[in-house]
Amino acid sequence: MKIEKKLRKAIREVSDFPKKGISFKDITPLMKDQNLTNEIIDNFKKLLSNKNIDAVVGIESRGFLFGMLLSNALNVPFVPIRKKGKLPCSILSQSYELEYGEATIEIHSDSLEKNWNVLVHDDLLATGGTALAASKLIERLGAKVCAFAFVVELDFLNGKEDLKEVSNTIISLIKY
Amino acid sequence: MKIEKKLRKAIREVSDFPKKGISFKDITPLMKDQNLTNEIIDNFKKLLSNKNIDAVVGIESRGFLFGMLLSNALNVPFVPIRKKGKLPCSILSQSYELEYGEATIEIHSDSLEKNWNVLVHDDLLATGGTALAASKLIERLGAKVCAFAFVVELDFLNGKEDLKEVSNTIISLIKY
Repeated sequence: MKIEKKLRKAIREVSDFPKKGISFKDITPLMKDQNLTNEIIDNFKKLLSNKNIDAVVGIESRGFLFGMLLSNALNVPFVPIRKKGKLPCSILSQSYELEYGEATIEIHSDSLEKNWNVLVHDDLLATGGTALAASKLIERLGAKVCAFAFVVELDFLNGKEDLKEVSNTIISLIKY
Repeated sequence: MKIEKKLRKAIREVSDFPKKGISFKDITPLMKDQNLTNEIIDNFKKLLSNKNIDAVVGIESRGFLFGMLLSNALNVPFVPIRKKGKLPCSILSQSYELEYGEATIEIHSDSLEKNWNVLVHDDLLATGGTALAASKLIERLGAKVCAFAFVVELDFLNGKEDLKEVSNTIISLIKY
């Protein structure tokens, strides 16, 4: 069976979470099945095999899960981007708009070397706001975003549109 | 060099974070070095080799990092315990006291089978409050905590004391 089909079978769609009208994609069953987890990582590796990735940036907190495995599989540094106030050393900070209000994410200033090719990972691509803010942090550190990798993409939200201006390589394993 | 020595060299101690008087242990350099990351996982595996672990529970969000790698290395399910309001399906909820106020963590009700031997993982053992609350959730689901595994232990806070009543196997790779 293809990965896309396996993922569609395993991911739970939860109606009206976190609020009415949203069909939440619950990825927790994927991690209960470590064979499927390994297939996810293998698929990412295959799709990214033409990239010279120097580091994987994972976005807190669900981006830590497959992000850490992917960096381990690629044998490159894992760098966390965290919510405001969580990283203890010198940081860069980036705010971005949400549907209501705004959010801020941060990266350690010394976490990436100049000109590094960085993969941005999160579990899910929705509007792309968080991934775009993440790529701004990466570029402000003098590194380059060479690709985005998501497990799930909410195609109808068109999050790819903004990310394309950063990198043309936007990977997802299943679309809704 | 022994793992403990390598960890002491890599972990950054940050004074007065998140507040005055606290010396924060920054583990982000460990993940930048995937050789060291692999050694961490290998050491956990060795120290837990006499346990028949059925699942690894990782506590949001830093417990997701090495927790996911450990479950993958052990080839058992990874089950996240998350902060309040983050898990979309049917949940159990457990509150516990913090120095000021309280916190609540949650687990999916269907995430563990009865009588499973569960490893609880977080990056750091401080007072043990979070790990104890996590073990209560696990026991309420009819599963058993067979061990706790932390990268860092703040020995002077004596967090082991309360956890001992849950399991005698409390592993940490470096003590401060």
